[in-house]
Amino acid sequence: VNFERPNIRAMNGYISGEQPQGNDTIKLNTNENPYPPSPAVNLALQNLDISALRRYPPPTASSLRNSVANLHKLNPEQVLITNGGDELLRLLLATFVSLDETIATASPSYTLYDVLAAAHGCRMKHFVMQNWILPIDIAQQLNAASIKLCFIVNPNAPSGVLIPVEKISQLAEEFKGILVVDEAYVDFVNPNLAHDCVKLINRFDNLVILRTLSKGYSLAGLRMAYGLGQESLIQPMQYKTKDSYNTDLIAQTLAKAAFEDQTYAQDTWQKVRSERVRVRAELESMGFTSPASESNFLLASVPTTENAEDLYLQLKTAGILVRYFKVPQLDNTLRITIGTPEENNCLLSTLSKLLQKKY
Amino acid sequence: VNFERPNIRAMNGYISGEQPQGNDTIKLNTNENPYPPSPAVNLALQNLDISALRRYPPPTASSLRNSVANLHKLNPEQVLITNGGDELLRLLLATFVSLDETIATASPSYTLYDVLAAAHGCRMKHFVMQNWILPIDIAQQLNAASIKLCFIVNPNAPSGVLIPVEKISQLAEEFKGILVVDEAYVDFVNPNLAHDCVKLINRFDNLVILRTLSKGYSLAGLRMAYGLGQESLIQPMQYKTKDSYNTDLIAQTLAKAAFEDQTYAQDTWQKVRSERVRVRAELESMGFTSPASESNFLLASVPTTENAEDLYLQLKTAGILVRYFKVPQLDNTLRITIGTPEENNCLLSTLSKLLQKKY
Repeated sequence: VNFERPNIRAMNGYISGEQPQGNDTIKLNTNENPYPPSPAVNLALQNLDISALRRYPPPTASSLRNSVANLHKLNPEQVLITNGGDELLRLLLATFVSLDETIATASPSYTLYDVLAAAHGCRMKHFVMQNWILPIDIAQQLNAASIKLCFIVNPNAPSGVLIPVEKISQLAEEFKGILVVDEAYVDFVNPNLAHDCVKLINRFDNLVILRTLSKGYSLAGLRMAYGLGQESLIQPMQYKTKDSYNTDLIAQTLAKAAFEDQTYAQDTWQKVRSERVRVRAELESMGFTSPASESNFLLASVPTTENAEDLYLQLKTAGILVRYFKVPQLDNTLRITIGTPEENNCLLSTLSKLLQKKY
Repeated sequence: VNFERPNIRAMNGYISGEQPQGNDTIKLNTNENPYPPSPAVNLALQNLDISALRRYPPPTASSLRNSVANLHKLNPEQVLITNGGDELLRLLLATFVSLDETIATASPSYTLYDVLAAAHGCRMKHFVMQNWILPIDIAQQLNAASIKLCFIVNPNAPSGVLIPVEKISQLAEEFKGILVVDEAYVDFVNPNLAHDCVKLINRFDNLVILRTLSKGYSLAGLRMAYGLGQESLIQPMQYKTKDSYNTDLIAQTLAKAAFEDQTYAQDTWQKVRSERVRVRAELESMGFTSPASESNFLLASVPTTENAEDLYLQLKTAGILVRYFKVPQLDNTLRITIGTPEENNCLLSTLSKLLQKKY
């Protein structure tokens, strides 16, 4: 007997980037921060009292939630702490999208959105970007298609291109559904741009911002993220649809320690930004092109003489993992996470040899 | 604007037992294990390398999953590691129950099932037990009502009464839908009963068993549980509907350490069993009655001269929390978690004074 719901039976699961065990591989394929978490995380770990694990954890992660609210100058009821960003994305559909409704994204984008729509059982529509720019009339297109909820990754993945605050603000104002701005990579935006969409939260009752500690705070292994929005959007997820105790006591404690050490985190972001500029210049000197990225990765179009999939496979053989997406819009590109200077040097010298067919 | 789906708008969230901060309260209201986790958990914690948190965790918690499979003599693909039992319960609905289908439970039971059905948007039907015994023709009743999935808590909560393996086996055989046996409290069953439903997994393709580390392994704060079932039931949840990285690296590591220290865990279970017998006898000597419990709590009907809610409130004033359910079937009862001998003594002496109106 196959007991699956028809939509589940018909769908394929999400395929994430390869996660080899061990440390032999230079891993530039899943956009992790190349630096370890703050030493404050280790200190918090050493101070943990495991006897406290006997009891249920604070259901809203109240202590971490207060830290997040303070930093963003929001009310704690405007903050939802989640078990990774994936949980927030899923909860948005579970809470706000009926199965006869349609969600959307500007594509190419994070392929998980399609998987979430399929698992939820609602419809999904793609609005295609040209040169990583949102269609000028995207709000009108979304409204004409009666879209209930739209995901925008900003900075975009896989390109790293940043949509300015003014455009997000205009979209939130004109779009009649819920606008979810997935800011998984926003920590890597150049601070000189003074990019800040959080200030829009109190202006728009249809805006949710996703943040994660996976990238900026080097805690992908800990599964901690959060959503920001007005109470009318946050509370139904907080008190009705999320699992009662969705994050554990240790993750709450360590995430708080990492989050409150802004100096350390910001230092890792700055290092990534410097390397991003350098790696992009070096790649361009080899004949790659890539849009200017405000994220911790570059989407590099390979030189016209090369095949992206071949290069991906040759890099893999050389012990370097990057991300290759076998889809028409991206089939001449590689998405390369910015690593440490040493990792980046290794990538660049290997690419250089491969391009000269000397490897 | 209220963007909530109609079913979400109409529902109320789950209300869990009170969780006071601090250690001033004797907490016998949410069925936690009164003993701390195994020292092996502390050792594993001290050996953690936080730099590993930079990367995503093993998506299926493979190392812990192998331990669980070994202990239960199952294939790892028959094991799903989840972020608490709540996640497994939710995934079962998300994966197998269409919104026009109906799920069921034998009640009184865990009220979360109703909340999950409301959040999912499916229908829920209650089959009422008499004296905590399943109706003899429950499979026929479930089939007649076209029930897609039925939750049975065993040992039952809130009574602690155990349904024997033969009855579960018969129900799995006759019921045409998915039978979910929620064994959150099964670790506390007297081993002399040789109660083992896991051996049914390979016989029935419609059976899922839930286990949790929250109670038996004193890890409620860590949010780790698992489901057991044939691959046709486990795989769609594992690879399609669960969040890609649903449990974090630290929780996986510490849960494995606790799970592999069976000697320690079993010792705590035995202590709870001894106290369960003693507390029940003492309560009965004071005029309470309770069904024989195979769990870590007792459902005590108060003496006919007393009012359960008043007693609950008086105990709370005295610094002792027990659980009072304000529903017609349970309104003369208190659910009392078995604590340490000292905690139980304090409960018993306080109750004794309250009953003699000497407090």
